[in-house]
Amino acid sequence: MTRFASFAELRAVCLDLPGGDPGAAAKVAAREARLAKPQRSLGRLEELVEWLSFWQGLAPPRLDKVEILVFAGNHGVTARGVSAYPAEVTAQMVANFAAGGAAINQLARAANAELRVIALDLERPTADFTEAPAMTEAEFLEAVVAGYNAVPEEADLVVLGEMGIGNTTAAAAVAAALFGGGGSRFAGHGTGLDEEGLRRKQVVIDDALARHAPILDDPLRIAAALGGRELAALLGACLAARHARVPALIDGFVSTAAVAPLAKLRADALDHARAGHRSAEAGHRLLLDELGLHPLLDLDMRLGEGSGAAVAVLVLRAALACHTGMATFAEAKVSDKES
Amino acid sequence: MTRFASFAELRAVCLDLPGGDPGAAAKVAAREARLAKPQRSLGRLEELVEWLSFWQGLAPPRLDKVEILVFAGNHGVTARGVSAYPAEVTAQMVANFAAGGAAINQLARAANAELRVIALDLERPTADFTEAPAMTEAEFLEAVVAGYNAVPEEADLVVLGEMGIGNTTAAAAVAAALFGGGGSRFAGHGTGLDEEGLRRKQVVIDDALARHAPILDDPLRIAAALGGRELAALLGACLAARHARVPALIDGFVSTAAVAPLAKLRADALDHARAGHRSAEAGHRLLLDELGLHPLLDLDMRLGEGSGAAVAVLVLRAALACHTGMATFAEAKVSDKES
Repeated sequence: MTRFASFAELRAVCLDLPGGDPGAAAKVAAREARLAKPQRSLGRLEELVEWLSFWQGLAPPRLDKVEILVFAGNHGVTARGVSAYPAEVTAQMVANFAAGGAAINQLARAANAELRVIALDLERPTADFTEAPAMTEAEFLEAVVAGYNAVPEEADLVVLGEMGIGNTTAAAAVAAALFGGGGSRFAGHGTGLDEEGLRRKQVVIDDALARHAPILDDPLRIAAALGGRELAALLGACLAARHARVPALIDGFVSTAAVAPLAKLRADALDHARAGHRSAEAGHRLLLDELGLHPLLDLDMRLGEGSGAAVAVLVLRAALACHTGMATFAEAKVSDKES
Repeated sequence: MTRFASFAELRAVCLDLPGGDPGAAAKVAAREARLAKPQRSLGRLEELVEWLSFWQGLAPPRLDKVEILVFAGNHGVTARGVSAYPAEVTAQMVANFAAGGAAINQLARAANAELRVIALDLERPTADFTEAPAMTEAEFLEAVVAGYNAVPEEADLVVLGEMGIGNTTAAAAVAAALFGGGGSRFAGHGTGLDEEGLRRKQVVIDDALARHAPILDDPLRIAAALGGRELAALLGACLAARHARVPALIDGFVSTAAVAPLAKLRADALDHARAGHRSAEAGHRLLLDELGLHPLLDLDMRLGEGSGAAVAVLVLRAALACHTGMATFAEAKVSDKES
């Protein structure tokens, strides 16, 4: 089991990242060029198969073991009235996941993926970050480690999702701390906040940014002070996936904000990840643009739970099916381009 | 078997369209509102289930029988050097469909859909439409009827796709004739035309628009003069789906251009259809905008064969899985919004 004793130790691990396997990706690209279709006419489907191959080091890549990880946490900042739902809904939804009644249960089945839900100290919300850091260094690292150790090294793909009442406030605060713009830039309606609630949320974020001004040059301290346990776990899981060369699909706004500190520490830290979708939560578009991530889907979803990325798994499966199942020009006896 | 004896008879059928079932859609919407998630947080997934329900008249809707129809035709205009591939590729690809080696074969399997490929007189290309109408009235109506009769009334969904070397030229000509702008507006690189070829294609389209100027106020005569047999069949299939209240997913640029005359005849003629994706072929974005169609996917695909819409079937299946499988707030014992 991996452990991180300090911010400094975690930072060192965040900076020491492996690359992928260009040879495997080149083999995939060479096969794509021989398949009976105009060059690159499957667009992102081709690019996605090359990406899977690059990180897995396999040609063709595999999607036999797809693991959806949903981390759940509670947030002290909910006391400030920043969510349309009461905080107890986090635990109720975790029970709903266990009972199989949530959207992600249906989507995991449709995507032929394993779903694992990891609740992080739900009875112990983070501190209200307008008053104190959301987590101490030790609390933050404990959550990062929980995420890190949740990624099976033998997975072919991990999907990173979350649940936590109040966590779009934490995500917007982290995003604003990393990329600037204050509370008004990344705060959105979340689960259905009204206009007055949205203004409150913006003020809460601005208060938090002011309080924690001294640490805003440090991405990991930002994650600890303004994030949440499920966000920290997502950061850890994304990092573990990179170290194990497991491709990752990031879900929506909260998941993207959770892993954004990694990209601030090292510009290529998310190369093993793709954004599964663009959420309807307004800040997500801005955040994806900041990170240079081009989402696979844009279906106005804003549920979290890994739901958007789980739908994107279906696109990956379609891409792989074309790559492995199609005939080449020679096999199909189809004339290649006139020349 | 339906037959149409004349443009006038077909036009009358195009103008006499049934509506859907608002009661079924309302039942679906009422259930969506009770499911344990923030209101409308599944975005287009919810809208798509309501749309299926509205046209099927079933709550919940079904996706048991999904039929992918791929129509193939040959084009006399290929003599003008408007395609990167030789015309014999159409028949070769039809053989590849039969052998199971094409992208659409893999995608149909992934989508759990039936694939039917209908080749239309491949040995008899349409006339070069810079010299004469692509089809006579009788030829056009024969192809429309082939498409009309290919739609099984008991299908839960039809996917409309095509194959035909040269058919992006026909599609661009039809689109320009319907919506204006000439050859430069809708012509694109198709299967991989170089810049010189693209300029040739634009000139060919402008020549055709000039030659057929007298009939450009009549959407069906446009389809006959500038389209192709597979485009005519797609128009017929889309019309049949409406009459049978079968929801339809339209594939890329060619499929969209093929059904566009229906929307010119009657503004709500495509309400039973959704655009499965936005193709990388440049004219598709413009054409979708003209038709007010908002595509489900945007994956830079430009293969045709129904491939983009087949991937979109996976999104519909995900949407339906959520709708039927999720627990309500009451069942899941999750607190609804604070109020």
